[in-house]
Amino acid sequence: MSRIVYVNGEFCPEEEAKISIFERGFLFADAVYDATSVLNGKLLDYDGHMGRLQRSLRELDLTSPVDPDELLFLHRELISRNEIDEGIVYLQVSRGVADRDFVYPDVDPSLVMFTQKKVLIDSPIAKNGIRVISKEDLRWHRRDIKTVQLLYAAMAKTAAVKAGADDAWMVEDGLVTEGTSNNAFIITDSGEIVTRALSNDILHGITRRTVMKFAQQAQMKVVEQPFSIEEAQGAAEAFITSAATFVYPVIEIDGKPVGSGVPGPSAARLREIYISEIQKTAV
Amino acid sequence: MSRIVYVNGEFCPEEEAKISIFERGFLFADAVYDATSVLNGKLLDYDGHMGRLQRSLRELDLTSPVDPDELLFLHRELISRNEIDEGIVYLQVSRGVADRDFVYPDVDPSLVMFTQKKVLIDSPIAKNGIRVISKEDLRWHRRDIKTVQLLYAAMAKTAAVKAGADDAWMVEDGLVTEGTSNNAFIITDSGEIVTRALSNDILHGITRRTVMKFAQQAQMKVVEQPFSIEEAQGAAEAFITSAATFVYPVIEIDGKPVGSGVPGPSAARLREIYISEIQKTAV
Repeated sequence: MSRIVYVNGEFCPEEEAKISIFERGFLFADAVYDATSVLNGKLLDYDGHMGRLQRSLRELDLTSPVDPDELLFLHRELISRNEIDEGIVYLQVSRGVADRDFVYPDVDPSLVMFTQKKVLIDSPIAKNGIRVISKEDLRWHRRDIKTVQLLYAAMAKTAAVKAGADDAWMVEDGLVTEGTSNNAFIITDSGEIVTRALSNDILHGITRRTVMKFAQQAQMKVVEQPFSIEEAQGAAEAFITSAATFVYPVIEIDGKPVGSGVPGPSAARLREIYISEIQKTAV
Repeated sequence: MSRIVYVNGEFCPEEEAKISIFERGFLFADAVYDATSVLNGKLLDYDGHMGRLQRSLRELDLTSPVDPDELLFLHRELISRNEIDEGIVYLQVSRGVADRDFVYPDVDPSLVMFTQKKVLIDSPIAKNGIRVISKEDLRWHRRDIKTVQLLYAAMAKTAAVKAGADDAWMVEDGLVTEGTSNNAFIITDSGEIVTRALSNDILHGITRRTVMKFAQQAQMKVVEQPFSIEEAQGAAEAFITSAATFVYPVIEIDGKPVGSGVPGPSAARLREIYISEIQKTAV
């Protein structure tokens, strides 16, 4: 069955969902996006994702084509029309349609939304963990803005899969920035959770922030500082966070096992806490 | 009158020219492009542009959806149908349509082409020159691949126009990389033409290469080395090259006049030579 998607004011089957070739999201990557997970038909950390979307828009002098109430209605309508029990709702605001010119045109922005069904809870990857390889981070230097300039992340993830791994951790000046679509963490032998601090170097992950908050509430110590691939390989555990993965253990980095090479207890506990707590604020 | 454009095997009016919202050129900036200028209805430096396109495609494991003969036919057909005497033909190959996933899918690439009428010869800007401001170069580090990841270039050019200038020269580690959609040159007091050498730091401009060749044939000395904004401000002349501008003099950088603050004779001569010589190989 084909999905029902949303394009600029209309719901339509995915096969008919089209945009102009002059849409700047297509010609200039002049677009931002966000994605919110759905569990039991409800949106997780929705305010967090919409808050980040507003920030991404502001950084590019873009505005949302619809108001917050309409945006929530559209999310719920897509969940309902596509019977999404577990999955995500993807949303992209592009600058709009204009003849090709580098200077921002004064046009109405476009809004495109669609759903994807995904297994979020009973994910075998959450149990078995992922293998990552390291890649030099060649992305632009405003990674805090969630734009569709994702080509390098796609290149790096494709290279990882070709190499028999699951994802890539990107490295700049000898220190890990993040995964291709997730934030990177390690847990030290003394139980400290370590992740790079926020800056223009990484995406300001919504799940990163929430997992850190829950960890602190559970009396786990969180330290914001960068780490190297070697430190990660020598850590007790490693994991990633993102909206669609929650918490996935990392069991191998560049062919070397992390800790004992099997998913560790702290990452499993964080995942469990996250799934339990985040549902309390689902909308 | 609306343009006739080309989208995946069909010619259609621009208002009907659409692509899927699942096209990776829209969701991941997973697309490359090139643009060839047209003078008197003929394509300039066509082999150069198509050679660079093939290189861009190879770097991303993409293939052209049509063969070289068909590509030339499509260029000529668009020129003819849109009665382009002076202007450009824009061409974009995107990876294709697939459900959203970072890993490259195995799908057919898309081809989109359109024309723009532009005044190339009697351009007032070529006579009067342009003003540029400097901006830190925050782009990704494979600028040699001509991808649609152009958001930062659009941001920088928009900022330049807002500041009352015409374009931005981007600076990395204290040295000019290039303009937002053109290569940057200075001419020293001793008449040497100086431009940054090719690397992953800049686009391998086709017009850059051809202008350098013509300059050498005219006994002008060309030196490939990087320069700072201060060196450019203190130079005898400065200019840019690109397919759609040929050679434009730069008369002001960050509010300081270059040389005497008016277009200089060497840039004018290079422009003249370029226009005269490049037409000999037009197709």
